[in-house]
Amino acid sequence: MIPKALAVSLTGICGPDGVIADRDRLLVYESDALTAYRHRPGAVVLPRTTDEVRRAVQAITRHGLPIVPRGAGTGLSGGAVPLGGAVVIGTARMNRILSIDAANRRAVLQPGVINAELSAAAAAHGLYYAPDPSSQTACTIGGNVAENSGGPHCLKYGVTSRYVTGLTVVLADGSVVRLGGQGREAPGYDLVGLFVGSEGCFGIATEIEVGLLPVPEGVRTLLGIFDRIEDAGRAVSDIVSAGLLPAAMEIIDGPTIRAVEDSVFAAGYPTDAEAALVIEFDGLEAGLDAEAARAAEFCRCAGAREVRSAKDEEERLALWKGRKKAFGAMGRIAPDLLVQDATVPRTTLPAILKGISEIGKRYGLVVANVFHAGDGNLHPNILFDRRDEDELERVERASKEIMQICVDSGGTITGEHGVGLDKKHHMPLIYGEAELDTMWGIRRVFDPGEVLNPGKVLPEETDPAARASRDDGAVGEKPAAAPAPAHA
Amino acid sequence: MIPKALAVSLTGICGPDGVIADRDRLLVYESDALTAYRHRPGAVVLPRTTDEVRRAVQAITRHGLPIVPRGAGTGLSGGAVPLGGAVVIGTARMNRILSIDAANRRAVLQPGVINAELSAAAAAHGLYYAPDPSSQTACTIGGNVAENSGGPHCLKYGVTSRYVTGLTVVLADGSVVRLGGQGREAPGYDLVGLFVGSEGCFGIATEIEVGLLPVPEGVRTLLGIFDRIEDAGRAVSDIVSAGLLPAAMEIIDGPTIRAVEDSVFAAGYPTDAEAALVIEFDGLEAGLDAEAARAAEFCRCAGAREVRSAKDEEERLALWKGRKKAFGAMGRIAPDLLVQDATVPRTTLPAILKGISEIGKRYGLVVANVFHAGDGNLHPNILFDRRDEDELERVERASKEIMQICVDSGGTITGEHGVGLDKKHHMPLIYGEAELDTMWGIRRVFDPGEVLNPGKVLPEETDPAARASRDDGAVGEKPAAAPAPAHA
Repeated sequence: MIPKALAVSLTGICGPDGVIADRDRLLVYESDALTAYRHRPGAVVLPRTTDEVRRAVQAITRHGLPIVPRGAGTGLSGGAVPLGGAVVIGTARMNRILSIDAANRRAVLQPGVINAELSAAAAAHGLYYAPDPSSQTACTIGGNVAENSGGPHCLKYGVTSRYVTGLTVVLADGSVVRLGGQGREAPGYDLVGLFVGSEGCFGIATEIEVGLLPVPEGVRTLLGIFDRIEDAGRAVSDIVSAGLLPAAMEIIDGPTIRAVEDSVFAAGYPTDAEAALVIEFDGLEAGLDAEAARAAEFCRCAGAREVRSAKDEEERLALWKGRKKAFGAMGRIAPDLLVQDATVPRTTLPAILKGISEIGKRYGLVVANVFHAGDGNLHPNILFDRRDEDELERVERASKEIMQICVDSGGTITGEHGVGLDKKHHMPLIYGEAELDTMWGIRRVFDPGEVLNPGKVLPEETDPAARASRDDGAVGEKPAAAPAPAHA
Repeated sequence: MIPKALAVSLTGICGPDGVIADRDRLLVYESDALTAYRHRPGAVVLPRTTDEVRRAVQAITRHGLPIVPRGAGTGLSGGAVPLGGAVVIGTARMNRILSIDAANRRAVLQPGVINAELSAAAAAHGLYYAPDPSSQTACTIGGNVAENSGGPHCLKYGVTSRYVTGLTVVLADGSVVRLGGQGREAPGYDLVGLFVGSEGCFGIATEIEVGLLPVPEGVRTLLGIFDRIEDAGRAVSDIVSAGLLPAAMEIIDGPTIRAVEDSVFAAGYPTDAEAALVIEFDGLEAGLDAEAARAAEFCRCAGAREVRSAKDEEERLALWKGRKKAFGAMGRIAPDLLVQDATVPRTTLPAILKGISEIGKRYGLVVANVFHAGDGNLHPNILFDRRDEDELERVERASKEIMQICVDSGGTITGEHGVGLDKKHHMPLIYGEAELDTMWGIRRVFDPGEVLNPGKVLPEETDPAARASRDDGAVGEKPAAAPAPAHA
């Protein structure tokens, strides 16, 4: 609970319906979609404008409380979990598309605009917004910016950072900065690119300028059915090696297929298959059929028992259904789900998939894979019941081993979900002291007092300030200049 | 000249042929390709390895001298000009391709590798490196990283930052950091993206990992000839609006055509034309002819008097010749050349081109335009003779006016050449105090003492440290913590 004086200030700024301080209603804000981490926020404020965000930030910091920005809460790394009684600044009411400049293919929006709604609005101009996280009917552009979100079609089109061209940002001290805007190349250091993917630690984006693309003239969607997941992996590798560039290539493994087919989302995939591969091409009509035919041939050569091809939009959606509903369907198998998103070199995919399967077996756990195969971006899902303490411990050990084999193969710990709370302790697997010091230094330029989303992304033990004070014998204390975050 | 002790140290590190201290030989290093700015360096060192760079940086900073990193010196913003007797660290001998991983389409190289040589080496694997600055037969990848270089084909393929996936960097204090590597998405804050385009102010990249692309299966090249430059601009706009995505769209204006045709590089463009438009499509063979036919039709509808189409690689190179040799040919018109690279919204191109022409007439100057039309990235070249002081003054005034109309139209001051020395005083046209403070803050994280490339990118008067000391009445002095750069 926040001090009464702060509640009064925030109500003055955002109105009585713009402040949530009621214990029951705060429940919703305890976690993001990675429900393993839960902390109750001090309060939630829902501003409508840049100026309300600015004033709310100033009021909260005056009371010495940390701040956690939050979009739709669909994140998968615990990035929006409010540690230490933080006040959540939610963007739910900042949901207006401010302008669409069709001729120059740009839109300016508030951060709370839902990803799919931007594409829906742009469709009137024959345009759409390319990055398409699987949660796109719920997740917000602000959250996408914080996490530098990807999606199935990012194989061809790239992730969020390729599309964000300008930002208005409220910093931790309440100042407002304008970064980039009106086109791609802002002179000087690339602050826009740096902000995208900064996971709520550098500021709160209150206006976002993005580039739009013309809706592709045509699309071709294929579904390859395989008896062995390695064969699906080989088809992906062969298609890429041949120089074909599908818009998306997604693998859904046997356990996932069976979970989907058992659910209300049944997509008509054969339940005895060990992998389904969705391949989509888009672009100008000319040439699309030839590309799709070549990809189908590569599937057959790699051992596909069947290759289906969508004849119309309805059939296309049917082929995609198994992929899009995979996460939902897994809820049928077990109440809890731990999804990683390690990225590995594409050529190591077959070996890594085998390794993950072996780790799962060794710990007696169900691991279901559904992933962006073309990018080598894995999403192994460990299914479990957290009420079973022994299982929970096995999940944690298996998860760490999976991470390790991915890193050892030349991969990295997160492809698109962010570091957040969940993976911050794995950062030293990737970075040494000098790299983490540089990240801490940059974070302090934006937020010297670690007010914004404290306890995320960078592990405390890598903090040079914390290290220095430990060296002085004052273990765990921060120097006076940087106020200790409330969760420390 | 540098102190004798430093010369001895550097010779010890890089060998006698790795240190240039001879007055005459230093001449070459006085400027980059923007010859209006010239300063003699204290010395030049040419290390071969990361460790030699590290030791050279430590030796130079021990003597309190600033450092300027330099690739091939083809830059166009004065970024490699050694101010204040700086020691130049040149990458000419760091020219090895360390590895090419064809399966995962990655290469690791030293910074002195020439852009075109990387593509030549990758060709054995059916791959190439996409960003293609017009200087690609001379410029180095290290310089491309510093400037975030573009090129004609960046319309489709994007600029350098899209391809750099990992960096080994020597910082100003001599520490060595590894950023990213082995794939695109490095977890945590995007230090790789931040470093690309930092213009030598954040560190010296000593190993660079880049992504490669498969050589396109086919290519179609067209040349549209126009009597009015606005018509060529309209063709560009119509082609983009139709959803076609050429790999490149370049406009060469009348004065440039005539300069080229008068030169040894005569490309066979009609000398009475007012614009030539080079359009290139590439990708899979299927569909390419249809795309080229549609683009040719848009040219004719916009008023092209003629559309040529290359039948083979020889004809293709002929069509490109006028574009590639434009800068060289301008040397025939006047001894000096000031090239800007403002970027404007594509829809404002016709109005801006007219505005530039009027400014040129008003000041009695020849302005030749050759530019990346598809991106709205202008390259107005003002031709002059710097020995004519009155003309030089008119050039400066015209240049500033051109910059202003671009900014007023919603554009920005540099598309791809960087800020360097030339445009740093224009930064406040784009950014306010808070934005520039943030940039200064980030620069200080990497280089607290402003050792690396001082006096570039950010104007001194925007330096918060300098502002603070001015507020204390100590005009122009820096606080003791940050050693004053030698040129201040």
